[in-house]
Amino acid sequence: MSPGCAADQPPQASSARTDIRDCSTDPPYLPPTATDTMARLAALRDTMRAHGIHAYIVPSTDAHMSEYIAQRDARLAWMTGFTGSAGTGVVTRDKAALWTDSRYWTQAERQLDCNWELQRTTWIESIGLWILEAVPVGGNISLDPFLFSIDTWNSYRQALHGSGRNLVPIETNLVDEVWGDQRPPLPSSKIYSLSEEFTGSSWQEKVAGIRQQMEQHVRRPTAVLLSGLEETAWLFNLRGDDIPYNPVFYSYTLLTNTNISLFVDKGRLSAEALGSLQASCPGPLCVELQEYGQARSHLRNYAQGNVTIWLGTEYTTYGLYGVIPKEKLLEDSYSPVMTAKAVKNAKEQELLRAAHVRDAVAVIQYLLWLEKMVPQGQVDEFSGAQHVDALRRSYNHGPSFQSISASGLNAALAHYSPSNGSSQKLSVDEMYLSDTGGQYLDGTTDITRTVHWGVPTALQKEAYTRVLMGNIDLSRLVFPPNTAGRTVEAFARRALWDVGLNYGHGTGHGIGNFLSVHEWPVGFQSNNVPLMAGMFTSIEPGYYRDGEFGIRIEDVALVVEAQTKVGQWGWAGRGGMARVGCRSGRGAPNGTSLWQHPSGEKPFLTFEVVSLVPYDRNLIDLSLLSPEQVQGAWGKGAEKACGASYGTGGAYSGTPGPWHEAGAAKP
Amino acid sequence: MSPGCAADQPPQASSARTDIRDCSTDPPYLPPTATDTMARLAALRDTMRAHGIHAYIVPSTDAHMSEYIAQRDARLAWMTGFTGSAGTGVVTRDKAALWTDSRYWTQAERQLDCNWELQRTTWIESIGLWILEAVPVGGNISLDPFLFSIDTWNSYRQALHGSGRNLVPIETNLVDEVWGDQRPPLPSSKIYSLSEEFTGSSWQEKVAGIRQQMEQHVRRPTAVLLSGLEETAWLFNLRGDDIPYNPVFYSYTLLTNTNISLFVDKGRLSAEALGSLQASCPGPLCVELQEYGQARSHLRNYAQGNVTIWLGTEYTTYGLYGVIPKEKLLEDSYSPVMTAKAVKNAKEQELLRAAHVRDAVAVIQYLLWLEKMVPQGQVDEFSGAQHVDALRRSYNHGPSFQSISASGLNAALAHYSPSNGSSQKLSVDEMYLSDTGGQYLDGTTDITRTVHWGVPTALQKEAYTRVLMGNIDLSRLVFPPNTAGRTVEAFARRALWDVGLNYGHGTGHGIGNFLSVHEWPVGFQSNNVPLMAGMFTSIEPGYYRDGEFGIRIEDVALVVEAQTKVGQWGWAGRGGMARVGCRSGRGAPNGTSLWQHPSGEKPFLTFEVVSLVPYDRNLIDLSLLSPEQVQGAWGKGAEKACGASYGTGGAYSGTPGPWHEAGAAKP
Repeated sequence: MSPGCAADQPPQASSARTDIRDCSTDPPYLPPTATDTMARLAALRDTMRAHGIHAYIVPSTDAHMSEYIAQRDARLAWMTGFTGSAGTGVVTRDKAALWTDSRYWTQAERQLDCNWELQRTTWIESIGLWILEAVPVGGNISLDPFLFSIDTWNSYRQALHGSGRNLVPIETNLVDEVWGDQRPPLPSSKIYSLSEEFTGSSWQEKVAGIRQQMEQHVRRPTAVLLSGLEETAWLFNLRGDDIPYNPVFYSYTLLTNTNISLFVDKGRLSAEALGSLQASCPGPLCVELQEYGQARSHLRNYAQGNVTIWLGTEYTTYGLYGVIPKEKLLEDSYSPVMTAKAVKNAKEQELLRAAHVRDAVAVIQYLLWLEKMVPQGQVDEFSGAQHVDALRRSYNHGPSFQSISASGLNAALAHYSPSNGSSQKLSVDEMYLSDTGGQYLDGTTDITRTVHWGVPTALQKEAYTRVLMGNIDLSRLVFPPNTAGRTVEAFARRALWDVGLNYGHGTGHGIGNFLSVHEWPVGFQSNNVPLMAGMFTSIEPGYYRDGEFGIRIEDVALVVEAQTKVGQWGWAGRGGMARVGCRSGRGAPNGTSLWQHPSGEKPFLTFEVVSLVPYDRNLIDLSLLSPEQVQGAWGKGAEKACGASYGTGGAYSGTPGPWHEAGAAKP
Repeated sequence: MSPGCAADQPPQASSARTDIRDCSTDPPYLPPTATDTMARLAALRDTMRAHGIHAYIVPSTDAHMSEYIAQRDARLAWMTGFTGSAGTGVVTRDKAALWTDSRYWTQAERQLDCNWELQRTTWIESIGLWILEAVPVGGNISLDPFLFSIDTWNSYRQALHGSGRNLVPIETNLVDEVWGDQRPPLPSSKIYSLSEEFTGSSWQEKVAGIRQQMEQHVRRPTAVLLSGLEETAWLFNLRGDDIPYNPVFYSYTLLTNTNISLFVDKGRLSAEALGSLQASCPGPLCVELQEYGQARSHLRNYAQGNVTIWLGTEYTTYGLYGVIPKEKLLEDSYSPVMTAKAVKNAKEQELLRAAHVRDAVAVIQYLLWLEKMVPQGQVDEFSGAQHVDALRRSYNHGPSFQSISASGLNAALAHYSPSNGSSQKLSVDEMYLSDTGGQYLDGTTDITRTVHWGVPTALQKEAYTRVLMGNIDLSRLVFPPNTAGRTVEAFARRALWDVGLNYGHGTGHGIGNFLSVHEWPVGFQSNNVPLMAGMFTSIEPGYYRDGEFGIRIEDVALVVEAQTKVGQWGWAGRGGMARVGCRSGRGAPNGTSLWQHPSGEKPFLTFEVVSLVPYDRNLIDLSLLSPEQVQGAWGKGAEKACGASYGTGGAYSGTPGPWHEAGAAKP
């Protein structure tokens, strides 16, 4: 599933379509998918007036900077009707606007009514400029400080700096005031422990590792503050289901060198979980349970001592950050827990690999089923999504995100999910994009395949092939240690760029062990950390043609050491390649000699793809592929043969793989 | 010439060599190239004690953040003996250390005595950690605020934040105090106007363009402050020779919406220059001349009014920045003059292209001369550098940087320059790297070629070929508008990465019209701006093997629009390709159809290489090149034929080009 942050793409000319709003007519045309926001906006503006506020900023996230949020935190969706996962709304006394990225432009045009301007960018600077035009000098621009990261807060402050307008944090959330008792309640389900077979290490070992990092840090922090829900869940090997698709629970943690405070609704902990946390009480490995709502005041008290508090700015809200005196702060982009979690140990790697094997069986079964059923006209987007969810159900804990099942022009919306009733029938005359994933106790999965059961157009075939070339080029890349993903992600785009095509979203994201499907800070974007052996990332180039079709090919890959040389005159396969019996390492391209790294250098890295579902040969134009790329596709072909052993009857098509037609030597 | 900033590379094991110091023996071994710094250090420490300072930071730059500096600003070189262009020295009461990047590690080991630790990194954080170990709590760490950028100052403040040590700016420069009357004097040469035939537009047009940007900016700045020497030189079409190789002069400019203040030694302006600047006096296009030393106090006065001052933080020192109240600042990384200068207009492009044609003749003549003279044992590094400088002399205003002429292991020092007497003889048994450039009235040039006149080793040949593959891959890349260089520079590295090799410097830098050879903010590094049509950048991958050899292949390329589609079923050559008669655009790789950009999209971009010197076929392993890369080399081969028309007798070798041997179809 494509990562949250997206590059800007210019809008494309729209034709006369009935699926999107048209605010230029009188009365405006609204599709049935649009929400009437007139009353909500009026109520919010009343509240704003009562607080003396001229503009109110509504983000899409929650108090933990979560990407996926519980319904009770879906303030932006409730205010605007827009349900995309990323966006910002601003309401002034007489205007309202929504900012979102190119993945969601069409979706926004389907869901917004004409009270809302759609701004096709996500730069805070542009939000600031809009606000400056809409709010007079002396006006108050307000937001809930617990819903904004430190960086975002600073960006707004910077954007309004010197403008004569005031940026005013208000702890009462104005949307919640208007939402009132219609707002969904707090969750009450149990928070449970993961059994030892599904964890890489005990929570005590994890705490010891973090405390060791604290001791070794030159600033000698006395505490680490955890705001991200994944951080606490990972650290204590606990899971919950407060947020759809993400097995996490509302919590904060303050881990000091002598104490551990977990802020959570104590009553929701299972007996087992409680026992696990308090086995060593009292002592430095005793978890003290505090009320979730007390995190801020506890932190404020703690910060009055002779302390240094280490936190990750990407997951900490300005609301918490603001209570810590600046000289007692140790700021990094990510907390040491976030960075420790990102590098999977050997056991976690095995768990995640195993989850992908089981997941591939479900997806291959789904593709086989589609191949049979679609020509009979029996599948629509929604029933397709239901079927793949059902195929995974025998092994898993539900989907890892809302299944994307998009036919024809719907696939041009990178994150379209069908709903019952308004869903399009799958057809042999259109492309179909399926982006789905599962939550297993051992790992989280995420995979996208795009298929065509009939005769694709020349453009569809070339675009698919170039997306595949990008996927292969990046996943076969060998790169030095300490390489940031952002410096290599263009390898996934070059084949498209060559003919003037591109895609508007990121190229990959980390993924968890029964945690989030988008797990930062791993990936290919500017705020991702350098790639390290043991990290898992998706690789998912795409191409979208608004109003026509969409393509995405997504695999999950493990960063492994590359063996660029073993011995003086020979090659070894790439690191990790020999592990899966059906795979073959990359052979020596031309028999030339190679040279070992100077002693002391860290080994180079590469990717080992752990997704095991074949690509659609019907959409591959082999003449575009280089021999190396055919080899890459062949690697996937080999995995396909592996797939057969899971009972899929020789994968989802009985004809020979593309490597036979390419005329390339098998490695 | 490779750009200033370099990636870290781990050190390689050193053997028993006499060219570098060995501080582990007693007495230490010092090569004759090392400088005795005992007395200077003692004098500096006396001064530090008198000022109550415990650590003093000495940078390599001047008060204009220049990369190349005048001798009177070479404080770091004078203190340490190290003459590399980038580094930082820190002196405490009993320790001294130099930080520099991998280009300069060996050079530092040749030039430092054992009073200085060599720190093989450039992270300010690591300098801060070293200082924290060396200076007790309560100690004063000091620097000259006019020699540090705002960012660097902030980084030091951040690194020492909360440590109990004080960061104290002192306006008296302590090195200058110790240097005394030994310090080279201020320059006195004339500052002159460029004639109209060598400028892209008049200075009045440039000023009008900047003022228009000021008016259109949402913050409505009232003034632009220019600290970079290139900025003032470019804006007023003036040149000087205060800094070796860079035709600039000591100056600041404060351009307001009603006035223009140029801070310069008035007496040094030529009559013509003076006339040009004051033709429209009085009035908004009258340049008021102020004393160079008055810039700060003038700025302080101006900043007391109701003003907003726009500046580029990358070229402004903390010394100037500090006098402007924060609410009156409009900060960007680069001033609008710097960004305007980076995009060459049509006339500037033609001027720069023309300079490269003349430059290529000189370089090809040099390579031909070497081919004849080296086998006779008649050339050493120094006489070679002198010869290429002389070949350029007929057209030019001197070299654009100190010629790099490096044989064998010396080429592993990316920026080695030979000196008379200690220079190595060129030999058919070793590789030779020549990185040179010229200053012409129409443009600045920069080109690197690596050659071998005998039988290269297999490693040399493979490494050269892979460096060439990187050069070709990047220079043939087609990419979308708004692409930052840092996101595509890995294309220049991939062929090396594939076999576990890499290089430790940047991949390219902007270049001026008779200005700097390293012209920011164009290039492939993290602080470069997105590539735009009209920018010129070098493309210069390399490979260095400490103690053995070095390879770099550098061309200069213009960013042009790519024509990914003309008509429905055909390709055009890449934008600009048809301009040079001997060149051929890239043909359709396989005759497939392509699709036009949706209307409204900006065109994709690519590079047009303007360097016209062929590569060394003796070092190319054709079996490694893809057909596309052979085509890229062939493009260069076509230019080589062009070279012949400049009287080089069929370029520097009479045998057929690599494209004949490759068996690839000519485009």
